[in-house]
Amino acid sequence: MLNGKVVEPSVHFFEGVEKLLEIWFEDGGNDDCDLRKIPRDDWVTLLKAVKCEIISFSQNDAIDAYVLSESSMFVSKKRWILKTCGSTTLLKSLKPLLELVPNYGFREITDLFYSRKNFARPELQAFPHRGFCEEVEYLDTVFEEGRSYCLGSINRECWYLYTFSKYKKEVSRPRKLDNAEPDQTIEILMQNLDNDVMGMFSKEKFNTGAEVTKATGIDKLLPQMEIDDFLFEPCGYSMNGIAPKGEYMTIHITPESSFSYVSFESNVSMNNYAELINRVVKTFKPGKFVINIFANKASPAYATIKELEVEYAEKTSWKRSNMQYCSFPLYNLLFAQYCQCP
Amino acid sequence: MLNGKVVEPSVHFFEGVEKLLEIWFEDGGNDDCDLRKIPRDDWVTLLKAVKCEIISFSQNDAIDAYVLSESSMFVSKKRWILKTCGSTTLLKSLKPLLELVPNYGFREITDLFYSRKNFARPELQAFPHRGFCEEVEYLDTVFEEGRSYCLGSINRECWYLYTFSKYKKEVSRPRKLDNAEPDQTIEILMQNLDNDVMGMFSKEKFNTGAEVTKATGIDKLLPQMEIDDFLFEPCGYSMNGIAPKGEYMTIHITPESSFSYVSFESNVSMNNYAELINRVVKTFKPGKFVINIFANKASPAYATIKELEVEYAEKTSWKRSNMQYCSFPLYNLLFAQYCQCP
Repeated sequence: MLNGKVVEPSVHFFEGVEKLLEIWFEDGGNDDCDLRKIPRDDWVTLLKAVKCEIISFSQNDAIDAYVLSESSMFVSKKRWILKTCGSTTLLKSLKPLLELVPNYGFREITDLFYSRKNFARPELQAFPHRGFCEEVEYLDTVFEEGRSYCLGSINRECWYLYTFSKYKKEVSRPRKLDNAEPDQTIEILMQNLDNDVMGMFSKEKFNTGAEVTKATGIDKLLPQMEIDDFLFEPCGYSMNGIAPKGEYMTIHITPESSFSYVSFESNVSMNNYAELINRVVKTFKPGKFVINIFANKASPAYATIKELEVEYAEKTSWKRSNMQYCSFPLYNLLFAQYCQCP
Repeated sequence: MLNGKVVEPSVHFFEGVEKLLEIWFEDGGNDDCDLRKIPRDDWVTLLKAVKCEIISFSQNDAIDAYVLSESSMFVSKKRWILKTCGSTTLLKSLKPLLELVPNYGFREITDLFYSRKNFARPELQAFPHRGFCEEVEYLDTVFEEGRSYCLGSINRECWYLYTFSKYKKEVSRPRKLDNAEPDQTIEILMQNLDNDVMGMFSKEKFNTGAEVTKATGIDKLLPQMEIDDFLFEPCGYSMNGIAPKGEYMTIHITPESSFSYVSFESNVSMNNYAELINRVVKTFKPGKFVINIFANKASPAYATIKELEVEYAEKTSWKRSNMQYCSFPLYNLLFAQYCQCP
């Protein structure tokens, strides 16, 4: 009872679906420019605006990786990635970040990607995330020439993308391409997962992240990765993996059966992602999943992502219910939705 | 002055952007089923709900073609196409049509496509067209399993599609495919057109549609077509072309320079649409245009539409600013945006 009103017990829910922001800065070939010089205190302050905290840290010569109370942050010399779930306010990091980076030599963003799947319960989100339109309006206050897209079915399941590129004007044959370093990202966003698998990601079953990483085979997905993992109380799991050349992988698991969600993300370069997708899907056993693969023109994945996806559907029992392929100025993007065959 | 209020003179505007509805019905191989048996009076009544009228008619053994006060209608044995511009209420034709067709032997829709480009002035549209969300809600009252898509940039220029397929469940390898007849549609939607070209589509320059069709070279775009054309007073132009095997083409022109718009649509089958696109673009000289090409798996265009588009951008001075390619259960769809190179 509160103020004479009966308060209904709220149904337990956690929004596993993450908001994902990836930003590339122009370093002008200057070796002094380095986002990793930003002190931890500044990250802590920035993350407060997002409503999350650092809970673990790992690094190598190429990349700093943070496990957060809600997902992950990766900091390289000139690339910054923030991925947060729940009702965090990820986009509130953008303006503080843009105030911070000039102190470390960066004046300009070359590419920005903001993306997320449709939320399971959008009504629980806070400003500026109460709908993709609101997110786009917020981003448009920072970028004059951003573009927003919706892949998949707007009125069913979909994946939203807002992208800004400094080189947008050199549309079909941008000159900067030859110098660009290869870049690619694969995300596998899984739902309706197997209860037995999800039951593993619980303090009832294991004491530490490391135990569950090994028991579930997460350590075998990309064996070259050095793993920093965390098992939440009473359940839930996050991991970051990093490799010497700046490759990363990150997995976040919301295991509760009524809203189970697992995300896998990595920037590993491959000609063919079919085997990796297969390993991930066999590990987590989703009922349905979406894949998105970005690759720039310097990436080995650039030309082949279309064919790979066709191949994946043909070689497995998964049914592809939708596939969209987009050609942006500097990147190709593949989006595909799969569900289990009956 | 009206009721004591000053009425501001409204700025002249006409929404050239059309709403387009294409519906295929299941005839179960029954030769008696034929949409062309629907009497003209019933079409007149149905079109009243849409707020447009028949102004010209042509036919051959395969297809009936109507020029309307706002665009066109094509009726074949089991396919119905309605395309209307301005502030017409196209979707209000749907329920009357579904009440009408059982009298002519049709019980079921096999495929439906509702599409349009973003309106230049969406605030001038009437229910149920006051936004794509409203259109989707309206269609969802008829179809349980419809899917809606937005191609291009949601916050800039885009093209909306709502699609329903009876065979949606047989997702990646539908069985019905082998029996399907080839089907393909190309649309070229042009804006910011050349003033000299647009000036031709006026009663000041010509007396009849036939004169302007010849003078502008529209008769050369697809020479096999028998043309029914109409020149509006004071300006504006519509034409339907039909060919013996049921091929059609249709062009609608809003020539006023501040909101010029030309649409070209045809179901002609081609392995490569690049030359046709070139002829259309050279005829009308747009500043920008979007293309969408649908092709089902039985169509010669099915596998090749991707490559064709790449080729088109490479062989001309047009810059492709966006390209999206979608694989639906029975159809492939290519969407591309072009602007003139500086």
